Amino acid sequence: MNIIEIIEKKKKAQELSADEIKFFINGILDGSVKDYQASSLLMAICLRGLNSREIYDLTMAMRDSGDVLDLSAIGDTVVDKHSTGGVGDKTTLIIGPVMASLGVPVAKMSGRGLGITGGTIDKLDSIPGFSSDLTDEAFIRQVKSVGMVDAAQNKNLAPADKYLYALRDVTGTVDSMGLIASSIMSKKLASGADAIVLDIKCGNGAFMKDAASARELACTMIDIARRADKRCTAVITDMNQPLGYTVGNLLEVQEAAEFLCGKRREKRLTELIICLCREMYRLSGRYPALYGENLQFRTGLEEEYKSFLDTKIEKMILDVLNSGKAYEKFKSFIKAQGGVTDSGDASYDYMAHYDGFAAEYRFTASEYIDENSMKSDTGDAPAVIVSRIDAEKTGRISLLLGAGRMTKEDEIDYKAGIVFDKLVGDVVKPGEQVAVLYSKDKAKLEQALQMMKEAVEYKSISDAVDCNSEADLAADKIIIDILT
Amino acid sequence: MNIIEIIEKKKKAQELSADEIKFFINGILDGSVKDYQASSLLMAICLRGLNSREIYDLTMAMRDSGDVLDLSAIGDTVVDKHSTGGVGDKTTLIIGPVMASLGVPVAKMSGRGLGITGGTIDKLDSIPGFSSDLTDEAFIRQVKSVGMVDAAQNKNLAPADKYLYALRDVTGTVDSMGLIASSIMSKKLASGADAIVLDIKCGNGAFMKDAASARELACTMIDIARRADKRCTAVITDMNQPLGYTVGNLLEVQEAAEFLCGKRREKRLTELIICLCREMYRLSGRYPALYGENLQFRTGLEEEYKSFLDTKIEKMILDVLNSGKAYEKFKSFIKAQGGVTDSGDASYDYMAHYDGFAAEYRFTASEYIDENSMKSDTGDAPAVIVSRIDAEKTGRISLLLGAGRMTKEDEIDYKAGIVFDKLVGDVVKPGEQVAVLYSKDKAKLEQALQMMKEAVEYKSISDAVDCNSEADLAADKIIIDILT
Repeated sequence: MNIIEIIEKKKKAQELSADEIKFFINGILDGSVKDYQASSLLMAICLRGLNSREIYDLTMAMRDSGDVLDLSAIGDTVVDKHSTGGVGDKTTLIIGPVMASLGVPVAKMSGRGLGITGGTIDKLDSIPGFSSDLTDEAFIRQVKSVGMVDAAQNKNLAPADKYLYALRDVTGTVDSMGLIASSIMSKKLASGADAIVLDIKCGNGAFMKDAASARELACTMIDIARRADKRCTAVITDMNQPLGYTVGNLLEVQEAAEFLCGKRREKRLTELIICLCREMYRLSGRYPALYGENLQFRTGLEEEYKSFLDTKIEKMILDVLNSGKAYEKFKSFIKAQGGVTDSGDASYDYMAHYDGFAAEYRFTASEYIDENSMKSDTGDAPAVIVSRIDAEKTGRISLLLGAGRMTKEDEIDYKAGIVFDKLVGDVVKPGEQVAVLYSKDKAKLEQALQMMKEAVEYKSISDAVDCNSEADLAADKIIIDILT
Repeated sequence: MNIIEIIEKKKKAQELSADEIKFFINGILDGSVKDYQASSLLMAICLRGLNSREIYDLTMAMRDSGDVLDLSAIGDTVVDKHSTGGVGDKTTLIIGPVMASLGVPVAKMSGRGLGITGGTIDKLDSIPGFSSDLTDEAFIRQVKSVGMVDAAQNKNLAPADKYLYALRDVTGTVDSMGLIASSIMSKKLASGADAIVLDIKCGNGAFMKDAASARELACTMIDIARRADKRCTAVITDMNQPLGYTVGNLLEVQEAAEFLCGKRREKRLTELIICLCREMYRLSGRYPALYGENLQFRTGLEEEYKSFLDTKIEKMILDVLNSGKAYEKFKSFIKAQGGVTDSGDASYDYMAHYDGFAAEYRFTASEYIDENSMKSDTGDAPAVIVSRIDAEKTGRISLLLGAGRMTKEDEIDYKAGIVFDKLVGDVVKPGEQVAVLYSKDKAKLEQALQMMKEAVEYKSISDAVDCNSEADLAADKIIIDILT
């Protein structure tokens, strides 16, 4: 077996055997396969594709290239949630406390952000005192005592994937379903969860630009999970606008706290949280307990029962949120990992927007209306409606403000970011504040303001009343599809 | 412009602009394009292809990556001949003296061999005293005084091609018509010839395995030449059996000498020499002189005139061969570059098989007949006919014997090689000698003998008489097609 023959085989659109795939992955690890050979094979894979068997074998070979965690000490089904990455995605911060409150153990390893998508660990690290670096023992101990833990991935998980991921980025070989799916799943399978809920973002602020490719990725990942004997559900969600009303690290922790304690719950985020928690609960294997041992499904009524059970679990989710139970869990979790939660009024510590920024910049709707080409359309209307907040542009702005990393070496400004006072569908009067931008860097704030003016679009109120098109209805849409 | 965008573009089967191709080639040279990026693009090119315009631009970018020779000091049309590489191909050694005798200047830069195909410079370097390393001045001076020169390519010709050629070899990206054609043509165009006759080998001992792909390569190269405003003819020739009766370096020089002085002219080699010389003469622009200024072509009679002129130039070629003029030119050329031609009997010095080998191994037809599975077919026939001498296997045997290089660093045993006493179509009696193998290495000779038994096949004489199939007729075929 030699790598040139393997490359030639894939070039001719032939199927690679499990042994050939292992030979490739092992060759990467021991250096016998050179980077120029790996990139050549990656391009052949991009253009010739991989079938489901090959994708599965590639995933397993990458999983086995490093540590594979054993979470059996937790003694319960561990359900993981993975997002393919979006702008303003703080769901992990909220879902953890909710699931733990429902009695489902949360043993999560999270990553750092790169590019326009943030990483949960960066968000948690923005909390003073919080430690994301835990030993194996501390990790398991905390799941048992608090019911949830979230630590930085400090293991040698799927190093072959790390290598290929970096190589794909600089060789134009990123967009292959098989490579994307196996990359995500190799890490997920190495991190030891029994079941996985995938949140596949779709839209201009996500890697998958349209629903069709998001569905294809979902099916590919579910197939890998099935072959690996893991339960898996994929939720396809919209990422054409940011998720929630904050983008940044500490800002998103604050929004999560406000969400949990009930101070402010943005509508789309609420819908997504309920959906993801419900699917995680389902995969945890607790559904039978909900309807009792005696309840039998009758043919033709499965859908009705499913709906009945979904309603039941959704009510349970709202209960732990509204009772403050999930918020208390959130605080216990942060305290357990050393984070400060009660410097003053305990319940509001992470809920008020942080005021201690060196520079703070406010821009108002009137500025947009003054400078935006929509002016002539609105005429002298007393108000307009926000019709669009571009997720991709918002992501780039938050990067510019210092809330994210362009390269792995960049340092993050934890307090930088954006708080939207107005979201899509909101009415804006002249002079009213739409968003606040935060950064340490005054010059970048000026530049970001200019970019923000292009990211937010308006329409006149009469348009909004007259128009009832699908595009308008879609503004609120967050859940696009659920695949199992 | 950045290389990742260029890779992505070709991945999507889009056409690359001349500037993008230049950016790629320049990036290779200055190191800004990494080898893993180059190999990724090469694979995309293999699978998505290049159109004629892109192939031309790639050729020119590679040509311009190093020195471009100016042969205008020669003051005449310089016609080059290039072979894509075969086993036992000593045509350059013979064509040079013939063309120089006909008054067509030969200013040739040749390469060294790698793998199963030999290189002209290795053959010339096997002549005691011969120097293939000439200054620019000596090179031009010799063309003017002797009429021919053949020097090693010591210039920095098409360095980008050198880099890509080596990279393709280890990344499974060799077999792309566009890459093969541009690789050859970039070097040819950099070496300054005005017109080029291409000898495209086709068969199991050549890179092009069948006539269809050889024709495709021919058309691609002719198109490049046309766009570069160079005259070009491609002759597609058979390489399923070795060319001539010797394979090796000094052995092939001896065969060339025997051919030139008329001692032994193998039939297929003779046909090829006449064809290539005729095409070179045609491209030199001397045809009008053959029929005189006053002769006008009449519509419908072009073919007749062409045939008349071809016959005329073929007669001229045979004249310089049979008169000994070409042989004298050969000796002048070798002397001019320091080679020894008259250590004893001048006319036979390179014509007798060299006797000074440390080891010499003879194997005879009877050995084959004893051990070959054809024995039962021939029964107790008094003789059989050689039906096949496998070119690829012969090439591997000569490599094993030491006549070629596996890697660039290998040293060549100039005296090693094979002399066939019998060729395809020849009758072999039991016990008769079919070939002699030469090598410094006795163990390798033993191994080579075993391999040689598999390379040569026989058929019974009655089969040969009865059978008149195309395959049998093709045994002698050397010229498959001529394309202009």
